[in-house]
Amino acid sequence: MRQPPRKRIALIGSTGSIGRSALDVVRKHPGRFEVVALAASSRAGRLAEQAAEFKPRYAALADGAAGRNADLSGSGAKLLLGAEAVAEIAALAEVDIVLVAAVGIAGLAPALAAVRAGKRLALATKEVLVAAGPLLLAEARKSGAEILPVDSEHSAIFQCLQSAGARGSESVERLILTASGGPFRTATREKLARVTPAEALAHPTWTMGSKITIDSATLMNKGLEVIEARWLFDIPPARIDVVIHPQSVVHSLVEFTDGACVAQLGTPDMRVPIAYALTYPERWPLDVPRLDLAKLRELTFAAPDHEAFPCLGLAFEALKRGGTAPAVLNAANEVAVTRFLDGTIGFLDIPRIAEAVLNMHTIVGQPAIADVIDADTWAREQARSISKAHQAPGNRS
Amino acid sequence: MRQPPRKRIALIGSTGSIGRSALDVVRKHPGRFEVVALAASSRAGRLAEQAAEFKPRYAALADGAAGRNADLSGSGAKLLLGAEAVAEIAALAEVDIVLVAAVGIAGLAPALAAVRAGKRLALATKEVLVAAGPLLLAEARKSGAEILPVDSEHSAIFQCLQSAGARGSESVERLILTASGGPFRTATREKLARVTPAEALAHPTWTMGSKITIDSATLMNKGLEVIEARWLFDIPPARIDVVIHPQSVVHSLVEFTDGACVAQLGTPDMRVPIAYALTYPERWPLDVPRLDLAKLRELTFAAPDHEAFPCLGLAFEALKRGGTAPAVLNAANEVAVTRFLDGTIGFLDIPRIAEAVLNMHTIVGQPAIADVIDADTWAREQARSISKAHQAPGNRS
Repeated sequence: MRQPPRKRIALIGSTGSIGRSALDVVRKHPGRFEVVALAASSRAGRLAEQAAEFKPRYAALADGAAGRNADLSGSGAKLLLGAEAVAEIAALAEVDIVLVAAVGIAGLAPALAAVRAGKRLALATKEVLVAAGPLLLAEARKSGAEILPVDSEHSAIFQCLQSAGARGSESVERLILTASGGPFRTATREKLARVTPAEALAHPTWTMGSKITIDSATLMNKGLEVIEARWLFDIPPARIDVVIHPQSVVHSLVEFTDGACVAQLGTPDMRVPIAYALTYPERWPLDVPRLDLAKLRELTFAAPDHEAFPCLGLAFEALKRGGTAPAVLNAANEVAVTRFLDGTIGFLDIPRIAEAVLNMHTIVGQPAIADVIDADTWAREQARSISKAHQAPGNRS
Repeated sequence: MRQPPRKRIALIGSTGSIGRSALDVVRKHPGRFEVVALAASSRAGRLAEQAAEFKPRYAALADGAAGRNADLSGSGAKLLLGAEAVAEIAALAEVDIVLVAAVGIAGLAPALAAVRAGKRLALATKEVLVAAGPLLLAEARKSGAEILPVDSEHSAIFQCLQSAGARGSESVERLILTASGGPFRTATREKLARVTPAEALAHPTWTMGSKITIDSATLMNKGLEVIEARWLFDIPPARIDVVIHPQSVVHSLVEFTDGACVAQLGTPDMRVPIAYALTYPERWPLDVPRLDLAKLRELTFAAPDHEAFPCLGLAFEALKRGGTAPAVLNAANEVAVTRFLDGTIGFLDIPRIAEAVLNMHTIVGQPAIADVIDADTWAREQARSISKAHQAPGNRS
């Protein structure tokens, strides 16, 4: 059999949790992937290790100061510094697939660059679609770029949609996103008010970065995923549901107009959706732990508690308001999570701050990228200023 | 939008449970289906009612004697009598899709006729593939006929396989058939020895004909489905698993080589897989009850108990022996179920008789249709003869 050409990839955010899992997928298929470029935010040491192993042509650090300590000698990689260099890497002519897994809004510029250059964008940074979904999709339509989800939930939906049939989205009735519910799934508001960062970081099923782990605990992660799904799959918010599923085995479902539901399941392992985004429309073998339903014995489901976890409702509200509202919600939340993690504010202050900033915002209806960036910057400032006015956890109810 | 041509269908077994559900699907899409022919075994009165409503061009009764009482006046349908007439209906030039839902081996001749004529065969009668899988598939390859499953489990797998990707079956690792486990899921052998036909007919989740309901209680139904799946999806038996799932909500799953599983779920309603077999590759809206996972709360799974339910193992054994062995297992089981239902033998005598006949059989390796029919006839005779030697339920252990 003829050897197919290698898939040439650029990893933006290679030193984070998703980036490292992606490199593990690459490791399992030596000779079928070529890592053309690696980019990280500031972890120069880890980036140098990755460069030594994967021999990319380019390695970039968004934080130029951190780059001064980077030693890439021996890897053969050309070191590039600064956020603009990261975006350039995403548009390299010798790259087919750009995996964007940078944290938060930092993913926007490289994602946009990849899409404008007509690449396949494997998108792990949900904030990109949350803040600038319609813009990104408009650019993809122009360039012919594909946007493939890396989130386990959206990858699940993308996989299930393969079963939609000849009329495609016309036969889709509902998307059903599953949510683990996080570590405080059954907690009361009283309990939630006294939650510590360490408790919130102890996610029951997934091992992830700290920002997304806190977002899982507040359900803001699911709210952002609802917004992401709305753009990625071009479906009205009223046809997106969320169901709590503590085992994180059913990664999400699609309900079709004929009453059939199709779900994607598996043991929680991010390498599966990452690999799918890289290899689609093929599936390549992956030796991850297999699902054993008889051993699991039960899968449970429940409706989300909107009172204890208002972030989910805030996301639907931001979608309803439209324009820059989702970008503002996302930015305010990002600041609030940072403040919660450093002990400045309590757990329940996260939705309070997000809601307060959302309500203060004057929406820009059909925003350009500059409007999105402005809204993001404005929301961060507001969130920081409100955070200062809040007290440390334990002192609030 | 241009009106697509109507789907022209023939229903073989129209008065049974599947046939009536199929006509209910047709009722929901007036103008998109044309019922060209209806065929039943012996229920002349019900066939006449259906003919009056759906105005087919032909109506057939396999049992010519029963046909003498049929009154099709007013329907405009031409009445045909005898098993051969039923097979002729399956090959009519003016038919696109033949739904074969006749009970047991009676489905073989019309299924074969439909496949030879290059029709889409929507196959509900699992005994057809069980007894003559390789033959039917060879004919389908010659004529270009499609064989689409109507069983909820195989339809589920067929739907999940749409997600296999560009390399198709190469990316399939395992098929996982779910089994409700029937009404005696947790019963001991002692309890099973004293089960009555009425108890065995009380299926917890599906409303079906009596033969398949008993087969569900013995797990022979699942065994036959394993054999069916082996041919339908061209997969070695070692890569087919069965998991007990009492709620019958997950209709079956496919595990891919990348570790992802895709499942099809829904409330148990045969109209969904029937409609899919008729409308594939499209999905047409169907107002069946929707799945509500939060309301269901839990889905449970367990490994099958091979000691209490030996029929499942017998099916794998028959596949291993090959040739006419599956046909013999199926025929012996069919007789044993009839004898159980009329009170002649006990519940545990069903697998005993099936196993005994299987062990007595001299396998024909690559059987022609005549060999299959001969094996079927032989196995029935043996099963009848062994049944007579058995006592009524309650007297055995």
